[in-house]
Amino acid sequence: KVTFSITEHPHRRYNPLLDQWILVSPQRAKRPWKGQQEKVNEEKRPQHDKSCYLCSGNTRVNGDKNPNYKGPFVFKNDFPSLLNEDISFQPNDQDDDELFRINPERGINRVICFSDDHSLTLPEMKVEDIVKVITVWQEEYKSLGLMDYINHVQIFENKGSVMGCSNPHPHCQIWAQSSIPTQAEITQKNLKKYYDKNGHTLLEDYLKKELNKSERIVLENESFVVLVPFWATWPYETMIISKRNIKNILEFTEEEKKLYAAILKELTTKYDNLFETSFPYSAGIHQSPTDGKNHPEWHFHMHFYPPLLRSATVKKFMVGYEMLAEAQRDITPEQSAEVLRKLSSVHYKTRND
Amino acid sequence: KVTFSITEHPHRRYNPLLDQWILVSPQRAKRPWKGQQEKVNEEKRPQHDKSCYLCSGNTRVNGDKNPNYKGPFVFKNDFPSLLNEDISFQPNDQDDDELFRINPERGINRVICFSDDHSLTLPEMKVEDIVKVITVWQEEYKSLGLMDYINHVQIFENKGSVMGCSNPHPHCQIWAQSSIPTQAEITQKNLKKYYDKNGHTLLEDYLKKELNKSERIVLENESFVVLVPFWATWPYETMIISKRNIKNILEFTEEEKKLYAAILKELTTKYDNLFETSFPYSAGIHQSPTDGKNHPEWHFHMHFYPPLLRSATVKKFMVGYEMLAEAQRDITPEQSAEVLRKLSSVHYKTRND
Ligand SMILES: O=P(O)(O)O[C@H]1O[C@H](CO)[C@@H](O)[C@H](O)[C@H]1O
Ligand SMILES: O=P(O)(O)O[C@H]1O[C@H](CO)[C@@H](O)[C@H](O)[C@H]1O
Repeated sequence: KVTFSITEHPHRRYNPLLDQWILVSPQRAKRPWKGQQEKVNEEKRPQHDKSCYLCSGNTRVNGDKNPNYKGPFVFKNDFPSLLNEDISFQPNDQDDDELFRINPERGINRVICFSDDHSLTLPEMKVEDIVKVITVWQEEYKSLGLMDYINHVQIFENKGSVMGCSNPHPHCQIWAQSSIPTQAEITQKNLKKYYDKNGHTLLEDYLKKELNKSERIVLENESFVVLVPFWATWPYETMIISKRNIKNILEFTEEEKKLYAAILKELTTKYDNLFETSFPYSAGIHQSPTDGKNHPEWHFHMHFYPPLLRSATVKKFMVGYEMLAEAQRDITPEQSAEVLRKLSSVHYKTRND
Repeated sequence: KVTFSITEHPHRRYNPLLDQWILVSPQRAKRPWKGQQEKVNEEKRPQHDKSCYLCSGNTRVNGDKNPNYKGPFVFKNDFPSLLNEDISFQPNDQDDDELFRINPERGINRVICFSDDHSLTLPEMKVEDIVKVITVWQEEYKSLGLMDYINHVQIFENKGSVMGCSNPHPHCQIWAQSSIPTQAEITQKNLKKYYDKNGHTLLEDYLKKELNKSERIVLENESFVVLVPFWATWPYETMIISKRNIKNILEFTEEEKKLYAAILKELTTKYDNLFETSFPYSAGIHQSPTDGKNHPEWHFHMHFYPPLLRSATVKKFMVGYEMLAEAQRDITPEQSAEVLRKLSSVHYKTRND
C-alpha cells in the first residue's frame, strides 16, 4: 500500500470556524482548462470619471449629488437590500409552521469610497490613506452598532467585475442589520464552543501554532499575520489575524491601525503581483456582533476570498459538486502560501526593471 | 407603522434542509446593472465535433479512444478529484490537533455523456432518450454504491460555461466517495431530526403543504412536482420532488422513470424559454447515501441552481455579503414560480410562429 502524502493524495480538511469539511485534490492541479476565460480590464482609469456615480461632485442614479469630497466618503446605498423602516409584523398561520419560517429584517446599507481618486485600488494607495479608511470603518461600526436594533455590522469589499462589482471606483460596503447573519452566527457558535472549552480564543491558539509551523504564513508584522488557512477553500484564500486578542476594530491602538493598513497594502500588492493583474476578490471583516453582549470568544480577522486559480483569466468554479456536496480545491494551502510568500511586496506597476 | 408585506419588505426565510436563513430583498429587483455581462454562445453545434473529447470515436486528452457509442456513455474522468487507490494513513501529531484535522479521501469520478449527439441538451432530447440516461444513473448509483468503501454517490450536471462547464457536449458527472460530503451530511441531519420527531419525511410533509398553497408550484405530473422552494437562494432555483416517499432512484417504477424524464424535459425547456437562451445551471440529485444503513428520513429530490437573474447576460453574484454573511436574493420565490409557471413547455427553438 502506498503511504499517504499530503501533496499527492486526495484528502479532506476540517474548517473549525464553520464546522465543515472541504475536499483537497492536489493531484488535479495540472488539469487542462478549455472552459470560460474571464475578461481582463487593464485600461488605465482617469482620476476623475464624469460618468462614475461614486466620484466627487457627480450626480448619482437617484439624483443625489456627491459633495466635492477628498479622501474616504460614506453614503447611503441607493439600492439597499435592507430598509431602516420599522415594520409591524403579525405572524400568521403560515409563519408558525416550522417549514415556512419567515421574519422581517431591518437594516442599513452604506457605501464607503476609499478615495476621491477613481484610478486607485487599495494596493496603490498610501498607507496613511488606508489608515483613513480604517478610521471610517471604526466610526461606522461604532455608530451603526450603537443603534438600538443593529446587532451586526458587516464590512466587505467586492473587487473586480468577476466578483460582481459594478463600479471600479475604489469602494467597499457595509450591511448592518438586526439579525446575526448565517456565516457570522455559525462562526460565533464555533468560536464560543472552543472558548468555553479552552479558555482562549480559537484564533489565538490557531495563530500560535501556525507561527510555529510557519509553512502557511504569507506575511507578518508586529501586530498582524496573513496566512493561508489550513482549511482554505479558494485557491489563494487568506486570512488577516490580529496577534492581540482583539474582539473588534474599535480596540485597535493607533499603532495597530497603521500596521493593519500596512499589511492590507502588502497583501493586496502581492495579490496584484501574482498574475500581474488587478486581483479580484471578496473580502470582509469578521468581528464581535454589536448586540450589546460580551463576546470573549471573538478574535478580529479578515477573510480574503479570491476566485482566480491559474492566471488572470482562469478562475476556480464552485459549482455542481461544490454546491451540492462539498467545497473542493486543487492546489494545497501550503503550495499557495509558498507562492504568495515568495512574491514581491512592490507593486508590479511601480517596478522599474 | 407600515404593515409587513412579503413582496415589498426585506425579510429572512429559513431553509429547513440546511438549517440556515437567507435574506430576501424584494424591493431591490429594480436595481440597474452596470457590471459584468456574461457571454452568450448561441452558435449551432454540429452533431459530431472532431475536436470534442466526449464525442463517439474521438481520442481523449489522455490518449484513450472513445468507442463508437450511441446513446448514453460512461467513462472514467481523466482528471479525477478522487482516487480509487487504497492509501495507508498514519495520523501524526498534527492530525491529532483539533485545529488541523485531515483525512485521506478515497473515491471514483465518472463522466456520463447523455447522448452521442454533440448538438443536444436535455430539453432538446426525446423523453425516451432521457429515460436511458436515468437508467445509467441507476446502474451507476447501484454498482458504485455496492462497493465496500463508497458511502455516497453524487450525480450532478454543470451546464453552460458560466457554471464552469468546459465542454458543451451534453454530459453530467458522478463523484462517488467514502465520506458523506458536507452538504449531504447537513441535509441528512436535518431530515433525520424531522423524521424522528414527526414520523414522516420532511419533504413529504413539505410537498403536501406546497401543493395546497400552490403559489410556488411550477410543474406537476402524476409522480413528481417541480417547485421554487420557499427558501430558494438562486433567482430561479427549483427542486424536483417525488410524490411517493422514494429514498433513492433505484426505487423508481418504470412508469416513474418516464414521468421523471418527462418533467426533467419540461423544466429544462421552461428554463431555456425564460431568456430564450440555453439556460445554465448546476443541478444534482440528493438521495440516500450508500453506507448500508437504513435511511427512512431520505426523500428523493433534485436541486437546480441556475445563476441567471434578469437576462441571458446578467447573473446573480453570490459574493461579498453572501460569502461572509448570508445568501441573498432580490425577487421573491413566489414571483419566480409565477414566471416559470407561465412559460411555454414547447422549446423556443422548435416553435413555428
Ligand atoms: O469537472 P469539470 O467539469 O471540468 O469542472 C467543473 O466541475 C467541477 C465539479 O463541480 C468543479 O470542481 C470545477 O471547478 C468545474 O470547473
Ligand atoms: O451592491 P453591488 O456591489 O451592486 O452588488 C454586488 O454585491 C452584493 C453584496 O455582496 C451582491 O448582493 C450582488 O449580487 C453583487 O452584484
